[in-house]
Amino acid sequence: MKIAVYPGSFDPATNGHLDIIKRSGALFDKVIVAVLNNPNKKPLFSIKERMGILKKTCGNLENVEIDSFSGLLMDYAKSKNANTIVKGLRAVSDFEYELQMAHMNKKLNPDIETIFIMTSSKYSYLSSSLVKEVAQFGGCIRGLVPEIIEEDIYRRFKKVTV
Amino acid sequence: MKIAVYPGSFDPATNGHLDIIKRSGALFDKVIVAVLNNPNKKPLFSIKERMGILKKTCGNLENVEIDSFSGLLMDYAKSKNANTIVKGLRAVSDFEYELQMAHMNKKLNPDIETIFIMTSSKYSYLSSSLVKEVAQFGGCIRGLVPEIIEEDIYRRFKKVTV
Amino acid sequence: MKIAVYPGSFDPATNGHLDIIKRSGALFDKVIVAVLNNPNKKPLFSIKERMGILKKTCGNLENVEIDSFSGLLMDYAKSKNANTIVKGLRAVSDFEYELQMAHMNKKLNPDIETIFIMTSSKYSYLSSSLVKEVAQFGGCIRGLVPEIIEEDIYRRFKKVTV
Amino acid sequence: MKIAVYPGSFDPATNGHLDIIKRSGALFDKVIVAVLNNPNKKPLFSIKERMGILKKTCGNLENVEIDSFSGLLMDYAKSKNANTIVKGLRAVSDFEYELQMAHMNKKLNPDIETIFIMTSSKYSYLSSSLVKEVAQFGGCIRGLVPEIIEEDIYRRFKKVTV
Amino acid sequence: MKIAVYPGSFDPATNGHLDIIKRSGALFDKVIVAVLNNPNKKPLFSIKERMGILKKTCGNLENVEIDSFSGLLMDYAKSKNANTIVKGLRAVSDFEYELQMAHMNKKLNPDIETIFIMTSSKYSYLSSSLVKEVAQFGGCIRGLVPEIIEEDIYRRFKKVTV
Amino acid sequence: MKIAVYPGSFDPATNGHLDIIKRSGALFDKVIVAVLNNPNKKPLFSIKERMGILKKTCGNLENVEIDSFSGLLMDYAKSKNANTIVKGLRAVSDFEYELQMAHMNKKLNPDIETIFIMTSSKYSYLSSSLVKEVAQFGGCIRGLVPEIIEEDIYRRFKKVTV
Repeated sequence: MKIAVYPGSFDPATNGHLDIIKRSGALFDKVIVAVLNNPNKKPLFSIKERMGILKKTCGNLENVEIDSFSGLLMDYAKSKNANTIVKGLRAVSDFEYELQMAHMNKKLNPDIETIFIMTSSKYSYLSSSLVKEVAQFGGCIRGLVPEIIEEDIYRRFKKVTV
Repeated sequence: MKIAVYPGSFDPATNGHLDIIKRSGALFDKVIVAVLNNPNKKPLFSIKERMGILKKTCGNLENVEIDSFSGLLMDYAKSKNANTIVKGLRAVSDFEYELQMAHMNKKLNPDIETIFIMTSSKYSYLSSSLVKEVAQFGGCIRGLVPEIIEEDIYRRFKKVTV
Repeated sequence: MKIAVYPGSFDPATNGHLDIIKRSGALFDKVIVAVLNNPNKKPLFSIKERMGILKKTCGNLENVEIDSFSGLLMDYAKSKNANTIVKGLRAVSDFEYELQMAHMNKKLNPDIETIFIMTSSKYSYLSSSLVKEVAQFGGCIRGLVPEIIEEDIYRRFKKVTV
Repeated sequence: MKIAVYPGSFDPATNGHLDIIKRSGALFDKVIVAVLNNPNKKPLFSIKERMGILKKTCGNLENVEIDSFSGLLMDYAKSKNANTIVKGLRAVSDFEYELQMAHMNKKLNPDIETIFIMTSSKYSYLSSSLVKEVAQFGGCIRGLVPEIIEEDIYRRFKKVTV
Repeated sequence: MKIAVYPGSFDPATNGHLDIIKRSGALFDKVIVAVLNNPNKKPLFSIKERMGILKKTCGNLENVEIDSFSGLLMDYAKSKNANTIVKGLRAVSDFEYELQMAHMNKKLNPDIETIFIMTSSKYSYLSSSLVKEVAQFGGCIRGLVPEIIEEDIYRRFKKVTV
Repeated sequence: MKIAVYPGSFDPATNGHLDIIKRSGALFDKVIVAVLNNPNKKPLFSIKERMGILKKTCGNLENVEIDSFSGLLMDYAKSKNANTIVKGLRAVSDFEYELQMAHMNKKLNPDIETIFIMTSSKYSYLSSSLVKEVAQFGGCIRGLVPEIIEEDIYRRFKKVTV
């Protein structure tokens, strides 16, 4: 069975992420969307919330599983019997960083392969942090994130600034 | 009337910024140089000071106006009846970030266009932060910023370190 | 009056070109779409045909004019009293070449400014040569070029290979 | 069954290509290495010879098949029931071109996905054309191409120059 | 006498750094490896420790000297009678930043030249910060840093997290 | 003695090339400017003429020698007892190609090092081919090439087109 891990912060998941998840689902027997628990960053949504959003929006995909991890991606992938890491590529700056990580991960575990999928052109400018920047000032994020979390994103920033 | 907004931190304005302002002035009926009030950053110069520097150095240009803004650039531009955003491009890394922002801004308001002007080759290596890095250690910044603020930049760093 | 020149080979014009033309029309009093007559290249469509396609597809835009030129762009722009060159930017590789040209053109005539507009994300992968590559083998080019020339493009390649 | 196509000119196959083929073999049920028959290029090795080299060097891999194609890659992939295209990525310049092709191919057939695998760092500078450039002047190509074709590559250039 | 300065944070020195040092030693009469004392950053190793690691691992190279500096690199280089700065280049993102710094340094002192050496392809993905990221979670860093400091790096992170 | 080779087509030498030559002269005991004799290209100036231009414009530099070569650069450098290759870097696209060549050359002869010098910012947009493109249509090339060859460049194109 071909198992792939799609790691990320997903804080929150954007429509660009969902597009990659759907397309990955067609390539592998199982895709594990793995939310990174990074203690050095202050996320807008908790790990639990981020997993909840992914479950609500990808829950209908049969071979997609939502999970979280901390520590080294390679250790996590091995524990899940995954032999592939999936990454989305948007721009040249993504590419260089991802290439560096892929080489390092290959060094850490040569049995696990990193593959890259290009982000759909209509989402090429999209990132979780840009969505948050826009939402913070009340800009329209319709079409950028799953509709069910739109309201919630705006609400977070009101709390923060109050 | 064609109104353009040239947004930035301008902390402080460099000769590269002034070059873009002058050249933009020749392209549009009015250019509004808009200093971004970003509460998340600790600037060397206050908004008032940054606007003051720009006024002193571009005040002689008839169709150039100095202003400040906070929040979304697209909201500000609309409130000023501007239909164009002007950005300077130096390097590939600029380009990718600016392309991403331009796409997002197009999504937020399709009626406002972002245009890019290349930085003059003699200023291609110049940025406000690099100027501050050099000045902090007493390096020569002659020719990089308007002469009238040279002394002031050095003085700030002496205050900070005392 | 602000006059801009949008130069290119337009062999043939794609929907990406038309998008740039429309948006440029909103920025300037007059936009001259200038088809380059390059004797070193063997085009699929003649200068006359390329201008014809542009006229049919942009003819309804009031302030857009279709023309052709040979020789130096700066000489042509000056002869038309244009003070701006418009270029579309898609990718980093575009950017570097265009930056080089813009610097050279600035040297040739400092009074004429080059401005860059980003290509719409949905056309980011589009170029005349890629359209021809696809059409040559009968691939679907619907949505990539103006519908009125679709048939004609396929026909050209049949002639060539017969 | 997950079938992938790895297309290329392979004129001749380098050790970088063989590395991608082996790694792809671990990701898919079947990998079809598809030699492009491009009538516009003058190859050093004929299609038959290029396929022969690949067969000799990858013949021991159970799920790898060697084939050739002409025309549109998407048409070929569909005819083989492949749902994935594999591409190797070395550098930024590769990346931009491949991204453009991947977007166009997605447009031509949304059911077929392009995935990218990074070239091993030790082959990051390797390309068929660079190997030929070196061999042409008698430079050492040991370790860059399969040993069984080393001699043959040198011999070709002697023929050409005689 | 041709004296070169190779500046950096070296927190800690990686095998990629050592490779550049050895190769620089063959190009110049003397190479001064200069550890930057940056008060704005919290290093894993102190200046003294970083210099100690470099001395242990490059001490056998006759014309290599280990030193530290703070303030402007150009001031330091001049005080050492160096006429060259050596920098390693790995990726495009390195390149742009380094080009900017080289231009600025040329402006500060036109008599001192910056030269770039490409990082060996096997170390192209290596950086001090990536090594620390891996070590922090117990990943294997064998072959990435000098063996004598491997243990020490792991130990630091245990202290930090306890 | 430290001997460096600065290879290129120099068809013709530009002021950017001369800048690199002068600066290289300060770094090495001897710099050999080596004009590549590439039988696959049709140059504007013959090898003899290109060497003549370089001699006239760099002849006053004591430690600079003008020569020509064909075949592999590494073979030529070795025959001249050079241990360094000098290359000028302008843009990212230069960088990637040069990095690839440097890695290959390292493979061919690990004893010869390639170093890169950044092109002066005022020549960052300059190349021999762009100069020819401009001159071909009578554009002003003053300041881009040595004055003594300006007239000659224009004359060549008149011959060609007559």
